[in-house]
Amino acid sequence: MKNRIVVIGGLAAGPSAAAKAKRVDPDTEVVLYEQGEHVSYGICEIPFWLGGIITDPDLLNPFSPERLGREKGVKALTSHLVEYIDPVQRKIIVRDLWRERVVESTFHKLVMAAGSLSRRLNVHGENARNVFFLKSLANGYAIKNWLKQEHPQRAVIVGGGYVGVEMAEALRRQGLHVQLILHHSFPLNRLEEPTRHAVRQTLQNAGVEIFENQIVERFEVDSANRAAAVVTTAGRLNGDLFVVAIGVQPNTELARNAGIRLGSFGGIVTDERQCTSLDGIYAAGDCCETKNLVTNRHSYMPLATVAARQGRIAGENVAGGSALFKGALGSTSLKLFDKEFFHAGLTSQQAREAGFDCRVDVVASTTKVGFYPGSESSTVVGISERKTRRLLGVDAFGGVGTVHRGNTMTLAIQQRMTLDDIARTDLAYSPPFSPLWDPILTLSTRR
Amino acid sequence: MKNRIVVIGGLAAGPSAAAKAKRVDPDTEVVLYEQGEHVSYGICEIPFWLGGIITDPDLLNPFSPERLGREKGVKALTSHLVEYIDPVQRKIIVRDLWRERVVESTFHKLVMAAGSLSRRLNVHGENARNVFFLKSLANGYAIKNWLKQEHPQRAVIVGGGYVGVEMAEALRRQGLHVQLILHHSFPLNRLEEPTRHAVRQTLQNAGVEIFENQIVERFEVDSANRAAAVVTTAGRLNGDLFVVAIGVQPNTELARNAGIRLGSFGGIVTDERQCTSLDGIYAAGDCCETKNLVTNRHSYMPLATVAARQGRIAGENVAGGSALFKGALGSTSLKLFDKEFFHAGLTSQQAREAGFDCRVDVVASTTKVGFYPGSESSTVVGISERKTRRLLGVDAFGGVGTVHRGNTMTLAIQQRMTLDDIARTDLAYSPPFSPLWDPILTLSTRR
Repeated sequence: MKNRIVVIGGLAAGPSAAAKAKRVDPDTEVVLYEQGEHVSYGICEIPFWLGGIITDPDLLNPFSPERLGREKGVKALTSHLVEYIDPVQRKIIVRDLWRERVVESTFHKLVMAAGSLSRRLNVHGENARNVFFLKSLANGYAIKNWLKQEHPQRAVIVGGGYVGVEMAEALRRQGLHVQLILHHSFPLNRLEEPTRHAVRQTLQNAGVEIFENQIVERFEVDSANRAAAVVTTAGRLNGDLFVVAIGVQPNTELARNAGIRLGSFGGIVTDERQCTSLDGIYAAGDCCETKNLVTNRHSYMPLATVAARQGRIAGENVAGGSALFKGALGSTSLKLFDKEFFHAGLTSQQAREAGFDCRVDVVASTTKVGFYPGSESSTVVGISERKTRRLLGVDAFGGVGTVHRGNTMTLAIQQRMTLDDIARTDLAYSPPFSPLWDPILTLSTRR
Repeated sequence: MKNRIVVIGGLAAGPSAAAKAKRVDPDTEVVLYEQGEHVSYGICEIPFWLGGIITDPDLLNPFSPERLGREKGVKALTSHLVEYIDPVQRKIIVRDLWRERVVESTFHKLVMAAGSLSRRLNVHGENARNVFFLKSLANGYAIKNWLKQEHPQRAVIVGGGYVGVEMAEALRRQGLHVQLILHHSFPLNRLEEPTRHAVRQTLQNAGVEIFENQIVERFEVDSANRAAAVVTTAGRLNGDLFVVAIGVQPNTELARNAGIRLGSFGGIVTDERQCTSLDGIYAAGDCCETKNLVTNRHSYMPLATVAARQGRIAGENVAGGSALFKGALGSTSLKLFDKEFFHAGLTSQQAREAGFDCRVDVVASTTKVGFYPGSESSTVVGISERKTRRLLGVDAFGGVGTVHRGNTMTLAIQQRMTLDDIARTDLAYSPPFSPLWDPILTLSTRR
């Protein structure tokens, strides 16, 4: 009988693993189950579509199940929910959500790529028709339809993480009045203070109203299951459309029931081969924990980049290869209105938690030579170990090019460079691209 | 008697060395001699000023000799030409060009930062009033005045290096018809073929006429010492303004006469402390050769970035410190109309000359996710050693962000990373900044 590899999950890690497995071992049958209707779409692009920057949603979803089959040799089944894995008998139970039937199937090896679930407030009214989450293309369509059909004027967003602030921009661009409720004083609570100030300022400059240090208590819902307001510890905000964006958590119920070991962040624990605690069962993407390259400890990094790379590694290994995923830095970039934001590596808080005696240096610079027309501010925040001067993490915020500058710093963190090593880098200079001394180079001069 | 450090040359390396020396040893007298009228100005910015992008020339020249004295404690003397160095008696002979007198002075230690000289065609008519070079702010003023007073309509530029193509843009921006004469088939003859194609296309799209494979034989000059045409091996081009931009060579006559050792590229040879063959005499900037970090061999890199960094090292050491300059990568960036160009490390030709069995990989990608509005092409060309897969050099060309992507690659070259190391870098992803798989990451997948 032909080998059969089963991949559970069709967003980023799953298709990546499935395609790679088939490429490595073309004789194996590779079957991918996805409980939703779409596979392999651009989830990072959804806020830009909702904001009207990207106009055609088909662009977000170039890979139909048919195309995955035709081009990658992967049998992809959508609307198929895997309900149980029997790791001993090598069987799975799958519910066909479309035909409403349950079938049993077998596997030789398996890749868990079940992704993550939106965290919920667990308050009254959270299931109202106009309270939205954003964790899938289907969620995106729901918001888009509500915008089209109901013409909401006032949006309230709960949560100031990446998705929350991207949605704030998207809805401002659609002409809505946008109110953003934060649990903390500033958005993006894991980043450094100057970065968070800059995010808040950018939002406020664009007319987003920010409400700080609030805890959501409930939604006020009418008889048609439509929310009219959100009630927080500080008061009441009326709205026509609500978005809850308070983060995600690994989707691991299936893994837990199968006896797969989970870690302290609630994600599946794997080795560097992306193999779980059960032989022949691999995992990749948001359902997993990921080793942080700075600390060499597990952490949780639900990012498309990490998922796609882990997926490829899991796919190679499930098909008999021996690739390693060494870890990641949680690198994230954000475009918010006309500003760029970046983070990679450890925040100062994470550095301290990991036992580093760290310092934080801020270099306020410009995107071009200061007097060059169109030059904007660009600030680099370096988190380094005091004694060794090793760069542990970086934030950057400002105008055009700031994110790419952050990526250069990412490579420096990954290479365990010190600030002094970095200062010796022979970066190119030309007036339209940076000041003569790029902020990357002057971080080392702070005393 | 107080220690006296003499610095010869006032553009990039000289002021950098002088200021650093004074900072390291405030009790030393530091005297800087510059034969021209200006010190410490932005020479890289001149084409942008001539093109009308930067409008105020004072911005290019923030450091007057007075300010260098007031803020840095450096006694800077302009219009002072050092004519002879006696390394044994520790004496120099200096001509005060303004007062027309010659004085003798002493030094304990000395930094040579005499820069470079424009290479000349050595043909008839090259000294005509409207044949310009671009090696100083004074040269820039000469071109600016000619533009203002003579309203030239047709410019002919000889040489397709960085200065030649930047001047082509500057003069196009001023409304001139621009003809560019190349010695080779393409501009920027040291870069890879796809890059050179892109430079040519960018120039031609902007209306610059290109004449290839031509050798200049002479200028036709009238009785008022005004050139009316340039005659090449292929014909005759009329013009009202001519620019000769065929590169630079180290300015070393003074050093040679003092018995300082020169290298095979004609520049002063220094050790990693920037010390020349004569004890107590240091050198920095365009008059020096520079160690290439990839080959660990000397080469010639007349770049402001390298000069400024070598100046600081020379300044520290001339004042008693012990800093090292490990070498450079010749990193260069270029903005040409709406396109960005980048190079660092070895070209494939240099790699072969240095004995590497190299391969060239081209990744054609985009600046943003392909379907994101405003996404432009962005191409990375990697030169790597075939066996070890170590990255030796990189070219990049395309839209916004391409140069910063190049800088990330520069750090990878400097760290001696392989294509596979680079592919593991956890670069951030967001649709406005790159495709999910940045071309940096996919270079390794070419087979």
